[in-house]
This record gives sequence, C-alpha cells and structure tokens, in this order.
Amino acid sequence: MPRRIPAEVVLLSAGPGDLELLTLKAVRALATAEVLLLDELVDPDIVELAPHARVVRVGKRGGCRSTPQAFICRLMRRYALQGLRVVRVKGGEALLFGRAGEEIAFLRQAGVPVRIVNGISAAFAAAAALEVSLTHRGHCHGVTFVTAHTHDHGEPDWEALARSGTTLAIYMGMGRIGPVARGLLRHLPAETPVAIVQAASQPGERRLLSTLGELADAAPTPETGYPGVILVGSALAEVSPCAVKAAVQETSLRKRAGDRPGAH
Amino acid sequence: MPRRIPAEVVLLSAGPGDLELLTLKAVRALATAEVLLLDELVDPDIVELAPHARVVRVGKRGGCRSTPQAFICRLMRRYALQGLRVVRVKGGEALLFGRAGEEIAFLRQAGVPVRIVNGISAAFAAAAALEVSLTHRGHCHGVTFVTAHTHDHGEPDWEALARSGTTLAIYMGMGRIGPVARGLLRHLPAETPVAIVQAASQPGERRLLSTLGELADAAPTPETGYPGVILVGSALAEVSPCAVKAAVQETSLRKRAGDRPGAH
Repeated sequence: MPRRIPAEVVLLSAGPGDLELLTLKAVRALATAEVLLLDELVDPDIVELAPHARVVRVGKRGGCRSTPQAFICRLMRRYALQGLRVVRVKGGEALLFGRAGEEIAFLRQAGVPVRIVNGISAAFAAAAALEVSLTHRGHCHGVTFVTAHTHDHGEPDWEALARSGTTLAIYMGMGRIGPVARGLLRHLPAETPVAIVQAASQPGERRLLSTLGELADAAPTPETGYPGVILVGSALAEVSPCAVKAAVQETSLRKRAGDRPGAH
Repeated sequence: MPRRIPAEVVLLSAGPGDLELLTLKAVRALATAEVLLLDELVDPDIVELAPHARVVRVGKRGGCRSTPQAFICRLMRRYALQGLRVVRVKGGEALLFGRAGEEIAFLRQAGVPVRIVNGISAAFAAAAALEVSLTHRGHCHGVTFVTAHTHDHGEPDWEALARSGTTLAIYMGMGRIGPVARGLLRHLPAETPVAIVQAASQPGERRLLSTLGELADAAPTPETGYPGVILVGSALAEVSPCAVKAAVQETSLRKRAGDRPGAH
C-alpha cells in the first residue's frame, strides 16, 4: 500500500514526568512512530516505547542552549512530506504553554495534517502529590494557569488574577518566586497559602508549603534544574502538613539514590 | 498475608470519555480494584478494565436523580475499613470540579489513606478536537477553568475573568450559554471568538464556533444530555473553520449510527 503523503504529525503530550501518566492513546502513537522529535524535559526512557523511531532531540529550555522553534517546525514538515509518521513529544500537556499553537499553524500552512494527543499537565500532578483539589468548593470556583512572565517579558495582571477568585497555578516561575509573591501580595493577604512542587510525579519530587508573605522575602532561587509549579490560593489550606513533611523525608532519601532533572 | 486495614482509596480520573485517554496508572489501578464506585458520566465500558471489582453506580448529575455526596463518602469508608481496594472513578480530572476536596477531607478524617490518579479534563480534549492551543502565545498568557455558576448559585466575577487576559474554559454551562455570553459581553468585545465542544473525544462529539455577540442572543439551550465546555477568548480565532465544518458532518453521520451521552 502506498504511503499517504504528507503523513500526519502527532503532537504528543508526555505528561509531567512519570511515564505511567502517559495515556493509552499516547502509548499507541509512540509504538508506530517512525520519527520522534523529543523535548529536553521528557524522560529519555520514553524512546523505549517507540522502538521503530529515529530519535531527534530538540530540547528547548529557559536560558540554556536550545533548538530554534522554526527549525523544529521545518524538521516536522520535512519528515511528514517524506511520508514518515512523526511524533512530536512535548512535556506536560501540549496545549498548555507548549507553543503548540505555532506548530499547528505552521503545519496547517504546509498542508500537513496534525493530530493532538492530550496529557497530564504539571499542576495536576502537583495537586495529586499534595492530595488537594485545585478547585475545592469551600474556597474557590476555578483555577487559572499562567506563566510567571508574559512572552514579551511583561508581568501578568496580578490584580485581575487575584480578583478572579480562582486558585493560581503559575508555571515557569521557579527563578522568580520572590517577585511573583511580591506582585500578588499587593492584592492578596500575606497569609494566603502557597504550595510549590518541583518535578511532580518524578523520583526527585519536592514539595513546599508556605505563604505569600514568607515567599515575598525569599532570596533569589538558585537554578535547580527542576521545573516546578507554584500554586497560590486558599484551596491550598487543605494540604495536610503531614503530606509535605513526608515528602521532605522521601526526597532526601531519594536524593541519596541519585536524582535527575525531568519534564514539567 | 493479612490485608492492610483500612485499605487505600484511589480517586481515579476517567478523563473526558474516550477510554483511550486513561493513563497507564489508571488502567493498573482498575485492574486490581475490588470495589468500583462509578460516576454516571463515565463510559460504562470502563468496568471491563476492572474484572475483579464489585461495581456500585453513584451517578450525580445536574438536576437529575443523584446519590448524595455524604452517602458516597460513607460507602468509600465502609469498603476501605473492610480492607477492600476501592477505586472511586470520576469523570474528567478528579482535582478539577469533582468535589474531590470533600472526599479527601472525609477520608483523611476517617484515617483512610487516599491516592489520586490524574486524568484528562474535558477542556483539553475539546482543544485537541479543535486543534487549538488553549494558551496561544500570540493571544494570551494562560487559561482559566471556571464553572458557569458558583456553588452558592452566584455568578463568577466575569469582569475580573475578562481582565485576566486568559482563555476561559467554562464548565457546566451548557444550559446557561446565553446568560454566560451576556455576562462576558459587558467586559469583552462582541466579536470575541467562542467555541463550544460537547462530548469531547466521544462518538457523539459536537463542535460549534461562534462569537460572544451571537451567543448572547441564543435561546435557552434545551437539555441535550451532553455535557460540554465553552471556550472563550482570542486564542479561539486560531480554530480552522474547516475543522468545525468537518465535525458537523461527522456528527450527523454518527448521529444516524446512534448517539449516547457520555462523560465530561
């Protein structure tokens, strides 16, 4: 049977790190992949699920060496036009902060069909680790996912976000914990609970429970190599301190066994 | 080996409907379940993944007959105290609008350990169906998940939500499309794009592309039996009209083959 040209490109969400959080649909797409374009933040063991695929690493990471977005787009198009089944693997959920919008627009323009496979975003894995609902009825009626700074390096409208009455899940903010807390402190009480989870679902997972007031005084965070999520709002008052304490102990035990940075 | 008593209760996210969107972790938890407490909105075929489980249906649905929350909590506790592996299956993502907060608090109080298994929430499946990023960099810097009305029957603060600069994903609003659109229209332009996806990922999936202005005049929506998500914001301008048109054709074809309502 002749190959369909161009082949479809699958934008695949690899989830927060633990490969057990892949969906069945993702596993099936990986099993038949012929080319895998792999984000740096995805567990490298994922390639074992794609035994027929040529693997191309196209990591992009805040502040470090990176493969330009335009080059990744051209690579996807090139392989698809050769009739090869391309799976573009993205950390977390592809449709949340993954620049999937630009990739979809580029491929559509090139006449290449796209299929999206959903995954678990880091904030949900963080909430699972903390055993807390992001939308506890007694506290809020929703949750907002934002990045710590806008793509033109501006600040989010912290006042509107604070007023929205939703839990905030702040991504890409590990290096800006102090400024984020100070920005929110102008519009929310100092005792507003904050939880920070790094490497959610992974062996190096770390959890911290604090308040806006405490974190506003935080020293600049050293680059840890672990992406994390900052959760802010009264719903976090439901986190049991035991869960966080257990996490610290676990983390130090696991740390001895050897950590490695992972996906977000 | 003696059973651990109480046994752990797993709060399991069944995703938006398509069982292929279950995670590997969810499939493993189902495989060893001894009691399954099943939401009405979950695909009944999920029981095939839990061959050893006694199945208890505890559906709760807006406006219809329902099992009271307190009764569900007591059931979970009772089985866990018998040492049985209980899996509480919830539609979508358990930590988003699932009343998981109350169930976790109840079980913690009763000394029953809880484990949460994440899943795909309907808005992500809706965005995948529309082939659109919820956070397209050219349009917004985040996404807010809210319900169409607060649990005390009030209105969300539409002004703050509009000002947040995020895409809005509005749950449980299929019966209130007109009021929601009118509430937002006071703070957003009439041409703001809106997409509505019902039964995302399921055979009966329906997609509609519109604007706030058009929907503000919408007649009260008849109860269709299909939960849906209302997506609002300029990011939705990236939805290709072809994708939506294709969906309408598909839907009518599938409709003839027999629809059924499903999970959200």
